Amino acid sequence: MILSFNFARIPNIIFGAGSLNELYDIIPQFGKNVLFVIGETSLKKSGKWDEITSIIDKKSFNYFLLSISKEPSPLIIDEAVTKFRKKNIELVVGIGGGSVTDAGKAISAMIPKEDSIKNYLEGVGNKIHDGEKIPYIAIPTTSGTGSEATKNAVISEIGPEGFKKSLRHDNLIPNIALIDPELMISCPPSISAACGMDAFTQLLEAYVSPKGSPMTDTLALSGMKYMNKNLLYACSSGASNIEVRTAMAYGSLMSGITLANAGLGIVHGLASAIGSLYDIPHGVICGTLLAEATKINIKKLQEQDSSGKEGLKKHADIGALLSEDKTEEIGKTDENCSKLVNILDRWTQELKIERLGKYGIKMEDIGIIIEKVGLKNNPVKLEKEDIKNILINRL
Amino acid sequence: MILSFNFARIPNIIFGAGSLNELYDIIPQFGKNVLFVIGETSLKKSGKWDEITSIIDKKSFNYFLLSISKEPSPLIIDEAVTKFRKKNIELVVGIGGGSVTDAGKAISAMIPKEDSIKNYLEGVGNKIHDGEKIPYIAIPTTSGTGSEATKNAVISEIGPEGFKKSLRHDNLIPNIALIDPELMISCPPSISAACGMDAFTQLLEAYVSPKGSPMTDTLALSGMKYMNKNLLYACSSGASNIEVRTAMAYGSLMSGITLANAGLGIVHGLASAIGSLYDIPHGVICGTLLAEATKINIKKLQEQDSSGKEGLKKHADIGALLSEDKTEEIGKTDENCSKLVNILDRWTQELKIERLGKYGIKMEDIGIIIEKVGLKNNPVKLEKEDIKNILINRL
Repeated sequence: MILSFNFARIPNIIFGAGSLNELYDIIPQFGKNVLFVIGETSLKKSGKWDEITSIIDKKSFNYFLLSISKEPSPLIIDEAVTKFRKKNIELVVGIGGGSVTDAGKAISAMIPKEDSIKNYLEGVGNKIHDGEKIPYIAIPTTSGTGSEATKNAVISEIGPEGFKKSLRHDNLIPNIALIDPELMISCPPSISAACGMDAFTQLLEAYVSPKGSPMTDTLALSGMKYMNKNLLYACSSGASNIEVRTAMAYGSLMSGITLANAGLGIVHGLASAIGSLYDIPHGVICGTLLAEATKINIKKLQEQDSSGKEGLKKHADIGALLSEDKTEEIGKTDENCSKLVNILDRWTQELKIERLGKYGIKMEDIGIIIEKVGLKNNPVKLEKEDIKNILINRL
Repeated sequence: MILSFNFARIPNIIFGAGSLNELYDIIPQFGKNVLFVIGETSLKKSGKWDEITSIIDKKSFNYFLLSISKEPSPLIIDEAVTKFRKKNIELVVGIGGGSVTDAGKAISAMIPKEDSIKNYLEGVGNKIHDGEKIPYIAIPTTSGTGSEATKNAVISEIGPEGFKKSLRHDNLIPNIALIDPELMISCPPSISAACGMDAFTQLLEAYVSPKGSPMTDTLALSGMKYMNKNLLYACSSGASNIEVRTAMAYGSLMSGITLANAGLGIVHGLASAIGSLYDIPHGVICGTLLAEATKINIKKLQEQDSSGKEGLKKHADIGALLSEDKTEEIGKTDENCSKLVNILDRWTQELKIERLGKYGIKMEDIGIIIEKVGLKNNPVKLEKEDIKNILINRL
């Protein structure tokens, strides 16, 4: 039975190697004053930004530039908005990893407001954003957050009183998601690995989410299918292979679309808590926790009565997909669930995803983290003890 | 290898039994003056329109009503637009089959223009629509055209000089597609059958289209999976079963999304030509031709060298899906293609889809039809002789 579901808009998607070239003809359709938000390092280091400026310098539109060096904080966004509000910006273009595309999204949404973004963040401020924004084009340079297709921008303030929360509105879905896998070729292995695990986590969590629909299910499976064959390659011998990067970019895009419509689970609940307390890349947190969290989710689902069946079947579907087991025999649910866990364990090892202890998290910190964790749309209820176990196993 | 692709926006989707109730709270978000475009018969006969009016009469918005009795012509649209342009309409809501939802879409797009729709139809007029429109909510009452998710409205003028052409712009995708399978329960078997075959044709043609992408592929397969189990039931013992109608509505929605992004093939090329010459329901034309056209497409693909392989594999995928063959052994392509044709043949018979001869088309008319046929995104080139054979076999 298909249950009721809502599916928000998706951006206009322009996908494919070389598609960045389309940007230059698209920009004038929006106006004459463009703000580019880019990353501090990668785009500049790869020479790609020089290439872009050599083209846009000759175009008839004016452009402004903002470089972002880390995950965006309220201060970064507020300062940028104050600076560029007077420039009559008609289009924001964010080119970079998730921090950059989220920063661009947040800036495009805050330019029309005479106010700090903090007031509009879920669980932080008490205002609700009305969706009014400057048009926004998101161009990812990593296959990670899927931010190019989501309706939220994640804003962090790190520290004991820190948070990692979203500015969210359906209308914040970028007007255009331009995905050019050529931009991802220069992404180094460790970042490709962390981002790839983030995207895969999003696909998996959206697929097993009780909020999912047949539409998010099929898109998530499609994304996982392409990532399965290419995640390890993208972080090793296939790093410069455009087919591999294209498949990863596709998986990441699907992860954004599906998470926006089906929600996420405990891994992202933990990532939100840990990310507000420690300066650890989001993808590393997701990547390091995914296998352990999946293990415990499956165990808890197995302990349930028949109500856990659907969730188990969903985990088994992924196990079958990743192990390319097409027989789908009845009674193979547990076997395919085990396969899933084994594959995720293997990926975590082969991709050399660091443990949390590497970033200074200790046993005595776990209590503080757990206090901040929300379960999101996890397919099964977890007790504090379960969440503690996930963390201990990845210290 | 994933090739480059574009994917247009989709509407905000509100899907599920009973979701019509959400309409009344949505309308005021758009304004105070609403134009309802509904079908002449079904919605009124089922008592559903009385139910709706009893609710909206108590609401604070004003509404106007337009009933549509057949596939929309330029005259119908122009007259409606002239009549309602002065009413300061802020929202159009189309509730009905494909003719009605297309009419609503066309009216919402033409209210801002002081001009006949004929001038903006592809292949008919010489103006290009700029996408400016009154917001539009599409509410289908059949599982057929998928118009609730497409960017075009099909407008017909029947006769020797007739046409069946589209008003098309990305921005004409409805703002909201509200799909309530309860509205489909009263749809009679013959209409459910024709509409169902239309939707299935759209899914199949989009899936085998060379313009497809992994995204349209997976959505099309998902739609076909749900329709496969439910098409025959929806037209017989399962007509009042909400699960069955829900699955059909989902398939139809997927067909709209996929056709908008992957295009269609020879069946719709023929339906466009035949529909401009004869007053035959669109779904009947598609339904009666699908099996024959698929047969000839497969034969032509088999006659090709390795370039036909991909197209054959795609047809085989559908054969495997419909026959629930999950083994996918190498070398089963031809076998699964045959299965596909057999199943489509069986559906055509069981659903009692009429032959074209029943509507007065004779052997001597075939030449005129063929002159008007475009191949659209058919997976293989067809000669006039091939197209002739499709028609002869369904006279």
